Amino acid sequence: MKPIRVTVWNEGRHEQKDAPVKAIYPQGIHGCIAAALRLAGGFEVRTATLDDPEHGLTDAVLDATDVLFWWGHCAHGAVPDALAQKVQQRVLAGMGFIALHSAHYAKPFKLLMGTNCSLRWREAEEKERFFVIDHAHPIAAGLPDTFELPHEEMYGERFDVPTPDELVFISWFEGGDVFRSGCTWRRGHGRVLYFRPGHETHPTYHDRTIQMVLANAARWAAQPLRRATNDSPWCKESFEPIVGADAPATTADV
Amino acid sequence: MKPIRVTVWNEGRHEQKDAPVKAIYPQGIHGCIAAALRLAGGFEVRTATLDDPEHGLTDAVLDATDVLFWWGHCAHGAVPDALAQKVQQRVLAGMGFIALHSAHYAKPFKLLMGTNCSLRWREAEEKERFFVIDHAHPIAAGLPDTFELPHEEMYGERFDVPTPDELVFISWFEGGDVFRSGCTWRRGHGRVLYFRPGHETHPTYHDRTIQMVLANAARWAAQPLRRATNDSPWCKESFEPIVGADAPATTADV
Amino acid sequence: MKPIRVTVWNEGRHEQKDAPVKAIYPQGIHGCIAAALRLAGGFEVRTATLDDPEHGLTDAVLDATDVLFWWGHCAHGAVPDALAQKVQQRVLAGMGFIALHSAHYAKPFKLLMGTNCSLRWREAEEKERFFVIDHAHPIAAGLPDTFELPHEEMYGERFDVPTPDELVFISWFEGGDVFRSGCTWRRGHGRVLYFRPGHETHPTYHDRTIQMVLANAARWAAQPLRRATNDSPWCKESFEPIVGADAPATTADV
Amino acid sequence: MKPIRVTVWNEGRHEQKDAPVKAIYPQGIHGCIAAALRLAGGFEVRTATLDDPEHGLTDAVLDATDVLFWWGHCAHGAVPDALAQKVQQRVLAGMGFIALHSAHYAKPFKLLMGTNCSLRWREAEEKERFFVIDHAHPIAAGLPDTFELPHEEMYGERFDVPTPDELVFISWFEGGDVFRSGCTWRRGHGRVLYFRPGHETHPTYHDRTIQMVLANAARWAAQPLRRATNDSPWCKESFEPIVGADAPATTADV
Repeated sequence: MKPIRVTVWNEGRHEQKDAPVKAIYPQGIHGCIAAALRLAGGFEVRTATLDDPEHGLTDAVLDATDVLFWWGHCAHGAVPDALAQKVQQRVLAGMGFIALHSAHYAKPFKLLMGTNCSLRWREAEEKERFFVIDHAHPIAAGLPDTFELPHEEMYGERFDVPTPDELVFISWFEGGDVFRSGCTWRRGHGRVLYFRPGHETHPTYHDRTIQMVLANAARWAAQPLRRATNDSPWCKESFEPIVGADAPATTADV
Repeated sequence: MKPIRVTVWNEGRHEQKDAPVKAIYPQGIHGCIAAALRLAGGFEVRTATLDDPEHGLTDAVLDATDVLFWWGHCAHGAVPDALAQKVQQRVLAGMGFIALHSAHYAKPFKLLMGTNCSLRWREAEEKERFFVIDHAHPIAAGLPDTFELPHEEMYGERFDVPTPDELVFISWFEGGDVFRSGCTWRRGHGRVLYFRPGHETHPTYHDRTIQMVLANAARWAAQPLRRATNDSPWCKESFEPIVGADAPATTADV
Repeated sequence: MKPIRVTVWNEGRHEQKDAPVKAIYPQGIHGCIAAALRLAGGFEVRTATLDDPEHGLTDAVLDATDVLFWWGHCAHGAVPDALAQKVQQRVLAGMGFIALHSAHYAKPFKLLMGTNCSLRWREAEEKERFFVIDHAHPIAAGLPDTFELPHEEMYGERFDVPTPDELVFISWFEGGDVFRSGCTWRRGHGRVLYFRPGHETHPTYHDRTIQMVLANAARWAAQPLRRATNDSPWCKESFEPIVGADAPATTADV
Repeated sequence: MKPIRVTVWNEGRHEQKDAPVKAIYPQGIHGCIAAALRLAGGFEVRTATLDDPEHGLTDAVLDATDVLFWWGHCAHGAVPDALAQKVQQRVLAGMGFIALHSAHYAKPFKLLMGTNCSLRWREAEEKERFFVIDHAHPIAAGLPDTFELPHEEMYGERFDVPTPDELVFISWFEGGDVFRSGCTWRRGHGRVLYFRPGHETHPTYHDRTIQMVLANAARWAAQPLRRATNDSPWCKESFEPIVGADAPATTADV
């Protein structure tokens, strides 16, 4: 079976300037996720960051990407609108897109959702417990019914997104909040997942269960099909002969 | 009961330059729809067009609009991006939005959908028959099981939109096509309807049944609630005391 | 405006045999809910219980019922299958149905869902906090963003129901669980709500906020339309002339 | 890769008593579908019919079935309720279920839907054209945008089923009707497809494109996971310590 081609995109700024983040992710968040996917097997993984030439997402890279992971936080505004639109178009054409944690405010994610993607938040080193809501979903394959992270940033409802097509996880937080922490949507020919955890000051992406979710998600989001997205053709020929009615019937003269 | 405040926005260009369109809609498409809603009763209706000052959609007008109808075709590009974004934000805050016919490509609709909203089309004076799929939906109140327009432009699948929350109508076309012709979505706090018919060269909005749909749609899309949309507050206080776990448990060292 | 005709059906057994329940609900759970709806106004309320003649749900009663509330727990099995099927058919024809708390296992609810409706549970006098997920939903009208019950039975995920059409509430529980506590579905021409709280040993239905939800739910579930449900007619006449193809083309001879 | 274990269940009565049907399906509808799946490869296929001992669906057979196809028409009533419930439970536990054509009225399908599954119909040898609505869906893999059957029975809307999770196909009929002809639902841990065509007097299941859909559907509906379905356990232990509030706060004394 051909490997799934994954590109892990990371803003990568916290790892440069915040010592505690650098200590947790010496290879960057992207490096940690890429290593986990390589270990899982079946993937051909590359990484890309905001500060790479062309932000790491040239057409050649996107042509060779079945699934794009996206982590961003403090530099959402530095992503050019044109790049965000290009990513959106790729998703509509069939590329998988996995938005992680603070990427709820990433430009491509917001374009795909059409909503503000706002939420409530608190940094208080609190416990997060995930409940699998849809055990049969491929993203939940092999997971226990619940799993925990000892310390995470809290994200709380209302999460301003369209109703998910599938709700895979709901999170419980020690401080008293809940969140739809694993949500999928189909957009155009592509599959989109939002997966909540991953604050930069916690070693979330080193966690084996979280890594299982990421690998499952990449497998689920990858699709063989790529199609043109913006096709609105004039259909000169009809399937059937058209007779038309005798006269334009108008039932009113308002 | 307080009247529902409706603004019917129309590009209004065909009616100026195309004699046949002007003949069908001497008061403009907006004028025809506004008259139908006034006749139905329960609405306070105003109209607005692309060529009005500020395109007819000042903050004062939007403040006084519960439901916005939108018809556009040849001049989608003349709508400023900032106006499209303002309309999007109003919908997310609870304003109803009814996109009509070629407004599938209108900027505010595309922003709300997050997809390309493309479709197939053919102008061949063909018969369109609507099937009510969801008889219990308020938009279908009082309608027969099927209704017809003798001549319409054809719009055919695939219609590139997110799966509708509710599918109210499917159209059959004489030339052999089908289309999801009445689709609803919730976005933020607002309700959105796409309603297919209404090509400018046909007297569609003079049709009594189509007018019933428009009035039903306005009643359905109107909501008392208005809320802030872009609120992502820092929750300083938690609901419950947070103890936290002793140590950041990391189950792997990838 | 014509009042909405509500029937509150209650198994009514705990109130007869369990002194603590009787102390909380001297008029029965049905009596408490009925009083709350009468206070809210706009409803014509009757009650019915398992031990009434014909279990309180004669055809005449159902003919005069726009919305049926259902509370049951220890005597689900005493509801005849034929009655459950009759209620299901009424819902498919447009009657609203509000399943409360342990009615997740009520026969009519299970018939409407098609799944086992199982869940996890714990009786531990724990705090339940409701989060409004869909503020624009009529069932959430006038509610605060969150509200609490000091002591409730816990219901935990996975709740084995079809994906709700709308998710109005999610509950957080002190003991560490979450639950989709307000779920709606359209079935046939009818609207169905499952609303979680209401264990018989807690004064849940005396709570003003819970009572607001019940009144909102009754308003939302009531629909003017009633239709035949089991109509699968032979359509002798077609809309259009049928020519047919020349020969039954078979593309294979497996 | 392990083959997917498919059981094709067919009522099998028309093939015994109706000469024209026997002429089209000398090995039965089940035999034709089984042969097509074997030819497609990757499946281990068995067949079962109503007149087999235990109707062909012993526990041993169901234990060895990943996906169950179901064709029935004139003898729905001869399927015992207990068997229908057993099939329903298997689906909730993860078995795929493909309901074909007149199986819209099959007992297991109706139990899974919770609705009447009624529709309109006409036998008039008319042309049916399928439109792929969701090109990215695995069930549509490799299909053209549209495909046709020269003669089929007509099924028309309203199809009384819950809103599908995914709408894969819509059909156009020569006589002027439309139908949601490929609908999927998740129920419990299982996946359900309703696929419309297949009237016994037409050679529909000999058609190569229809056969592609059937093979795609079997691949899509097969899931590795099997789980208990009716688990509603008492959770003696909570995840977190429960303090409870001081007193049962009641905000009202209705």
